[in-house]
Amino acid sequence: MRVLTSEVTLQTRGFNDIHDITDRVAKAVTQSGLASGVAVVFVPGSTAGLTSIEYEPGAVADLSEAISRVAPTDIPYAHDAAWGDGNGFSHVRAALIGASYTVPFADGTLLLGTWQQIVLIDFDNRPRSRRVIIQLMGD
Amino acid sequence: MRVLTSEVTLQTRGFNDIHDITDRVAKAVTQSGLASGVAVVFVPGSTAGLTSIEYEPGAVADLSEAISRVAPTDIPYAHDAAWGDGNGFSHVRAALIGASYTVPFADGTLLLGTWQQIVLIDFDNRPRSRRVIIQLMGD
Amino acid sequence: MRVLTSEVTLQTRGFNDIHDITDRVAKAVTQSGLASGVAVVFVPGSTAGLTSIEYEPGAVADLSEAISRVAPTDIPYAHDAAWGDGNGFSHVRAALIGASYTVPFADGTLLLGTWQQIVLIDFDNRPRSRRVIIQLMGD
Repeated sequence: MRVLTSEVTLQTRGFNDIHDITDRVAKAVTQSGLASGVAVVFVPGSTAGLTSIEYEPGAVADLSEAISRVAPTDIPYAHDAAWGDGNGFSHVRAALIGASYTVPFADGTLLLGTWQQIVLIDFDNRPRSRRVIIQLMGD
Repeated sequence: MRVLTSEVTLQTRGFNDIHDITDRVAKAVTQSGLASGVAVVFVPGSTAGLTSIEYEPGAVADLSEAISRVAPTDIPYAHDAAWGDGNGFSHVRAALIGASYTVPFADGTLLLGTWQQIVLIDFDNRPRSRRVIIQLMGD
Repeated sequence: MRVLTSEVTLQTRGFNDIHDITDRVAKAVTQSGLASGVAVVFVPGSTAGLTSIEYEPGAVADLSEAISRVAPTDIPYAHDAAWGDGNGFSHVRAALIGASYTVPFADGTLLLGTWQQIVLIDFDNRPRSRRVIIQLMGD
């Protein structure tokens, strides 16, 4: 059993910018030489999240709209009243989606469905350079 | 430390069909002979999700309604406009709930609460045969 | 590779009572002597959840309000009709947020962002004594 920690960096635009990072995670598994175990994908920061979806423009837009319905930009946020950075909606969306995504792999392959991609969503209200941690544990 | 990957298959009806899979996961732990570690439960596919709830008909119906409020069937979805398969709402719901559920075990027992069951939710708009991966890591 | 299971207990007030438990998890990592691996934080029970957020009063209040919009207290719940304990909203909120939070650590340090705290949210409708499991796996 080994633990291998790596990271990738993505340039994001914010406002529900959704990036397919499946290839990055799959590459980490391949390069590790591990056969089976889990990949824990984690985004440090409180205005981004991780989940999976069929990565086609329609579903991606639909997800973005659903999250925006739950935490709209056009209502008052106490975070904004206190800090003035205008990204209260980003914090709420990130907390609802979650910063962590765990996916098992076997025979060196992520056990995702064919149309299931791992996505980073940047909820912030400005472009960001985002680190994503990929930690593999297995043998 | 060992990694053990197994899977179970469930027949589901779709439209927020919620199945208690706690016994399947507990059985995998018992059969593994592992004492302590984590069970990563994962559903391949982009129209199903995993979480936990008190598995009684009332709470299950309440959860189904809440998810349907967030991503209703009767609004337009860009996924449906592009692909015509009518399950845009299913994709959104699945991405919001998440495809992965991680639960620790010790002394060969899942550390769930008494009234806390692991559930698979099939959000698709048709019956499916669903594979669920159960990956155990521990010793 | 080792697996170490510990737990902490918190006194909570319910009704979206949000507690920062980052220090508890960080302390478990430090005391374990493990350098790298994952911390699986898990709350047994079906009326509490775990996520991460910038733990300042504004963002915490905003998150509480967003969850309350999705599963309000003032609508009928089938759980309440059947069981009469009045916490149907708590069950739904807990299932939506999730009972499990996984975060990697390396060099003995949780790989959280600077403004990202791990929080327990008690959704129940009364004060509770809440156990939170912290399971570390790594080496």
